[in-house]
Amino acid sequence: MSAYEPRRPDFEQAVRTSFGKQGMMRHIRASVAKVEPGFCEIHLPYSDDVSQQHGFFHGGVVGTIADNAGGYAAFSLMADGDGILSVEYKLNITAPADGELLIARGRVVRPGRTLSVTTAEVTVVKDGKESVCAIMQQTLMRIIGNPNVVG
Amino acid sequence: MSAYEPRRPDFEQAVRTSFGKQGMMRHIRASVAKVEPGFCEIHLPYSDDVSQQHGFFHGGVVGTIADNAGGYAAFSLMADGDGILSVEYKLNITAPADGELLIARGRVVRPGRTLSVTTAEVTVVKDGKESVCAIMQQTLMRIIGNPNVVG
Amino acid sequence: MSAYEPRRPDFEQAVRTSFGKQGMMRHIRASVAKVEPGFCEIHLPYSDDVSQQHGFFHGGVVGTIADNAGGYAAFSLMADGDGILSVEYKLNITAPADGELLIARGRVVRPGRTLSVTTAEVTVVKDGKESVCAIMQQTLMRIIGNPNVVG
Amino acid sequence: MSAYEPRRPDFEQAVRTSFGKQGMMRHIRASVAKVEPGFCEIHLPYSDDVSQQHGFFHGGVVGTIADNAGGYAAFSLMADGDGILSVEYKLNITAPADGELLIARGRVVRPGRTLSVTTAEVTVVKDGKESVCAIMQQTLMRIIGNPNVVG
Repeated sequence: MSAYEPRRPDFEQAVRTSFGKQGMMRHIRASVAKVEPGFCEIHLPYSDDVSQQHGFFHGGVVGTIADNAGGYAAFSLMADGDGILSVEYKLNITAPADGELLIARGRVVRPGRTLSVTTAEVTVVKDGKESVCAIMQQTLMRIIGNPNVVG
Repeated sequence: MSAYEPRRPDFEQAVRTSFGKQGMMRHIRASVAKVEPGFCEIHLPYSDDVSQQHGFFHGGVVGTIADNAGGYAAFSLMADGDGILSVEYKLNITAPADGELLIARGRVVRPGRTLSVTTAEVTVVKDGKESVCAIMQQTLMRIIGNPNVVG
Repeated sequence: MSAYEPRRPDFEQAVRTSFGKQGMMRHIRASVAKVEPGFCEIHLPYSDDVSQQHGFFHGGVVGTIADNAGGYAAFSLMADGDGILSVEYKLNITAPADGELLIARGRVVRPGRTLSVTTAEVTVVKDGKESVCAIMQQTLMRIIGNPNVVG
Repeated sequence: MSAYEPRRPDFEQAVRTSFGKQGMMRHIRASVAKVEPGFCEIHLPYSDDVSQQHGFFHGGVVGTIADNAGGYAAFSLMADGDGILSVEYKLNITAPADGELLIARGRVVRPGRTLSVTTAEVTVVKDGKESVCAIMQQTLMRIIGNPNVVG
């Protein structure tokens, strides 16, 4: 399923534990749906808390979960004790995020000792139908010995 | 103060009215601090709702208010009845957003009939001292006859 | 092979004709290796003309052919008489472009009436072995009735 | 003039020496017009070698000199023996690069021990009149003990 070897057996738990500490993610009710070595999928149900004035998911929240999905995809390949920090990310919004559920799938393109590069695809589910609404390209930096730093 | 001529006298009210309709902005308690033709400044106080696991502002929220500041800077130059949509944005995080207040200042670099280009600088205020934590570059598209579409 | 329907039967010739008019591409000896609806592959052999001081392909030339591959992927879906213009592109360099041949493969992610979004992967071939050295994300704008505008 | 302290007295010569080793820059006749600590200005005269099919400067070459201007702005703050590598750059093209001279001005926004962030503005001079045609945002990585690595 994944081309990458995790550096720790409990990589999934490490992702879920770190994610659980993010007040913002808890707050908007985002959840980690799937973790594989170098891959992370995040789900976010629609609510007024993540809306813009048109009733769609806010563009900022689309970027937020894309950034997080890429960040945790990279974090899943880190060693115990390491953290990861977003250096930069670039989001193209390809369609309005109009639907009941937002899904971000982050994948590691280049795992690095210092820098990692990821991409993420964000889809929106409306009336059960899933379609792409954004794509992201991101750079992350490994923080040695600080597992608390993500995103 | 500004190099741009607004297309409507009530451009500031138009920005504030649209901003007020964004559930997410209301929710995280972001506010429009200043509007000029081609410029918008947004403030966001720290709270658990916008935090990551390290106690800093979440990187996604830094991108969210940068995206919004750039979007409303461009919206301030639109004609009555027009809206604007984020096509893409790119954020470089230059320092952890560690502080009590986050400020995003968006400026129009290129006002366009169809596409506008903006930049935003995000600063964080800690113990009263303000420092840059991120910069953004963004493309927006004018939506003719749909004032409800922003960001 | 491709999910897209071309708007003109001679889409490949249209791409090759436009490409042939680019002084810079001719000059650095880049060539169009493959065209499909929504896809374009460009090859560039190593030469001193495209080098940086370390003897690798120059980072700027990596971006140049990525930009071109994405641009022609989008152009391949345009109607006769239309042109396309790069609005913005973002390149992540994932490895030094060290080798004898540079290959850029551009793909349309979102074909649009006004705006198109593409991605490109750039690989470098060294001693016959191909590996990824950069990825790109790009926005392009359709120019109605101006087939000469590309990139 | 500059807010930054150079780490070596001969920073300008270091930039010019490294730039002189880039086959591509020599080849398209680009030159370093100005160097300050954290700043670099590059000039490129129009020629068929840098053109696209419309007779403008090729979008790729606009990105190339923007990338180089930002890279050398960062390199000007490096210590003797250090090099710098482009991690990523993002270019927004705000107008066709139609003119006789292209100018890129790179500035360091965040000088870093490991990563530096720069911005560049690219202008084009037509009939003696200079106007902005592109803006860039870039991340660079310091390569300790390898002065040959730039761009």
